[in-house]
Amino acid sequence: MVTGSELLRAEIADENGPFLARELARLGVLCRRIIVVGDDPELLEAALKDGLEADLCLISGGLGPTHDDRTIELLAKVAGRQLVVDSELERAIDLVGRRYARNVGTAYHAYDEGVRKQASIPEGAHVLGLAGTAPGVALGLDGCVAVALPGPPYELQKLWPAALESAPLRGLLARVPPFEQRTLRFYGLSESMLAAALQEAGGDGNGVAVTICARDRELQAELFVDPGAEARADELVAALTAAGPDTLFARDERPIEQIVLGLARERGLTLATAESCTGGLVGARLTEVPGASEVFLGAIVAYANEIKQTLLGVASETLGRYGAVSAECALEMARGARRALAADVALSVTGIAGPDGSSADKPVGLVFLCATGETETLGQEIRFSGDRDQIRRYATVAALHLTRRLLESSDFESKTLALSGRR
Amino acid sequence: MVTGSELLRAEIADENGPFLARELARLGVLCRRIIVVGDDPELLEAALKDGLEADLCLISGGLGPTHDDRTIELLAKVAGRQLVVDSELERAIDLVGRRYARNVGTAYHAYDEGVRKQASIPEGAHVLGLAGTAPGVALGLDGCVAVALPGPPYELQKLWPAALESAPLRGLLARVPPFEQRTLRFYGLSESMLAAALQEAGGDGNGVAVTICARDRELQAELFVDPGAEARADELVAALTAAGPDTLFARDERPIEQIVLGLARERGLTLATAESCTGGLVGARLTEVPGASEVFLGAIVAYANEIKQTLLGVASETLGRYGAVSAECALEMARGARRALAADVALSVTGIAGPDGSSADKPVGLVFLCATGETETLGQEIRFSGDRDQIRRYATVAALHLTRRLLESSDFESKTLALSGRR
Repeated sequence: MVTGSELLRAEIADENGPFLARELARLGVLCRRIIVVGDDPELLEAALKDGLEADLCLISGGLGPTHDDRTIELLAKVAGRQLVVDSELERAIDLVGRRYARNVGTAYHAYDEGVRKQASIPEGAHVLGLAGTAPGVALGLDGCVAVALPGPPYELQKLWPAALESAPLRGLLARVPPFEQRTLRFYGLSESMLAAALQEAGGDGNGVAVTICARDRELQAELFVDPGAEARADELVAALTAAGPDTLFARDERPIEQIVLGLARERGLTLATAESCTGGLVGARLTEVPGASEVFLGAIVAYANEIKQTLLGVASETLGRYGAVSAECALEMARGARRALAADVALSVTGIAGPDGSSADKPVGLVFLCATGETETLGQEIRFSGDRDQIRRYATVAALHLTRRLLESSDFESKTLALSGRR
Repeated sequence: MVTGSELLRAEIADENGPFLARELARLGVLCRRIIVVGDDPELLEAALKDGLEADLCLISGGLGPTHDDRTIELLAKVAGRQLVVDSELERAIDLVGRRYARNVGTAYHAYDEGVRKQASIPEGAHVLGLAGTAPGVALGLDGCVAVALPGPPYELQKLWPAALESAPLRGLLARVPPFEQRTLRFYGLSESMLAAALQEAGGDGNGVAVTICARDRELQAELFVDPGAEARADELVAALTAAGPDTLFARDERPIEQIVLGLARERGLTLATAESCTGGLVGARLTEVPGASEVFLGAIVAYANEIKQTLLGVASETLGRYGAVSAECALEMARGARRALAADVALSVTGIAGPDGSSADKPVGLVFLCATGETETLGQEIRFSGDRDQIRRYATVAALHLTRRLLESSDFESKTLALSGRR
């Protein structure tokens, strides 16, 4: 249950529901639904009553000091518990409040009422610590565990480990039957082919639950295996793998950018990018990973054709003859970035993200990729469908996978130049 | 109501709920809740029953050809309507299916059952057209309008205009009382100061509803004004504006990257970026806007210090004496990008996104920004709190706002060098 009126009127995607759903899946707990509600007390109370009918009800938001932060008060009411002031918590919140007031230069007395409010918790609740001035709490009830966490995603994620360690949640998780989880991730395989392979192998059941999930053209199959069903799981893994053995790229959850950085690090190689239609997205993805600087040197975003020439050394003849969206330009961009940034491996992306800029032979969604090392080069031409945002995301992920293939395939001693995937 | 089991087990944020909530707000319709449910028929049916108690129930997903796509069938059941095959729709879906089968090279007969299923709609439902092979429908019921739309965000957004034009939804929207909407957006003002200004001015009510929403340190206040309450709205606008007149930057909803591109275009100026800790995010944001290429030339992502020297011309003395995270380095990066990309205006970002790389005097979250034109330069030092992802997003937005200020303030004839915002 996610509270926050702003989530019901602005185009802000809730991050807390997905984060918690993912965490629950990892723990073998099935999330039945996510509900986003505003500050209206009646609707909040109704949603809480509903939520407490589940074995576990995770609530985010509404823990602040102001009158319209009502989560704790309503949780106590619905659970039939008294609100009590936790004096230790009161001191801790007071300290945070004083520090904050000092930093922003306001008088402290203004916060007194808020402190007492935030230190009031349902009788018997376990305090999970503070993130900002908001305390998380876990409450064991008859047939349900309720956990209230702060709304800002950063604060919620900070207190989540403490929630997992709290007595009520540990007691509940101890009742989850043991299971083993296996992950298979594919790139370049269609969802329907993977679903067909699963069906032909007899589908899930018999102690193995299988979920298939697609994101940015990556497919993730997860097997939840009951004790004793390991042999059946082996069969299913073999059947799913056989659907596209060359497309299986991981058996864990590390994002593709982390896999690419890891491969480069293992081989002692540095990386650079040359980007046109992605405008910096590939560099941004790579640098999401802490420690990327060990491997990633930088990027040249050559959005204008002149920059492709001046900074990447793409020949004006190439642009004139083949255009900026061509295999030839992608190759020269990658080579140019490798040279300009003195990198061991460089990748490039050039394409038409739309909605404008297309022509009869170069439609929206046409993208050329290239990854090049000292001795080996891989090129790829793909036609994506979708809107501008999707095409750019697909192209970013495709460029990272092409680089993964280059890093995996090459021992950097072979002398072959393989321009694959061209039509 | 958003359906899709993958949203309940993977860390995928739902985009449809936020999109539709925002659209409803624009139309003066209050979204009471967003509910995400899986494919389980019992839970789906219960959620639909709940949903149909509202004036309007928008449903996304579950319109596909397979057995676990149950939205239409359950909607008909809960609404007490027969399922009927729409023969015109059947022909249209058949055509799309044949074309698809031809493209992927499979036999067509496999799709027959799916076509009939997707062409079956509740009696009396209005067909909204096709996105892929999924038809959207609008159904007018006693006291409720139900609209079912496809799950993929791109397809949902494609059919949404047809939903708005459908008779049932037009009838409902005609009953929404007329109102005027006013938007005020601030950057550099705290949410509590804006809330205090609203409270001091007497708060909302009296025909003016006010919502305040924060994202990436931008604040957006929206006033929903009933007819006759214009004078009161004027008062509130004046009071909110007075809370931070210098921080008010827009009265419309255009994202900051679009505002920056618009200002540069009006002045006939080109833009470039030099990025370190943001790794390409600023370039990626600017190129989200179609037509960015008229103004944005490109970026140099200088993640490694050597690249700051070789491609941006940052002096080794500057790096040695002040470090890469310094006002001096930010200034040289911006100047270097302006020169290397031959741009009229360049901006730079350098900082410590964490979790590693900090020192006693350079904590995680410390960021230096610079925006420079022919004659004028603005610099800024900010200390953000949050995780790596937040710090990078905050820095991206801050860099765009600094560039906006440069473009707004300067007529590019003044000769002042103003390094403001330094502590």
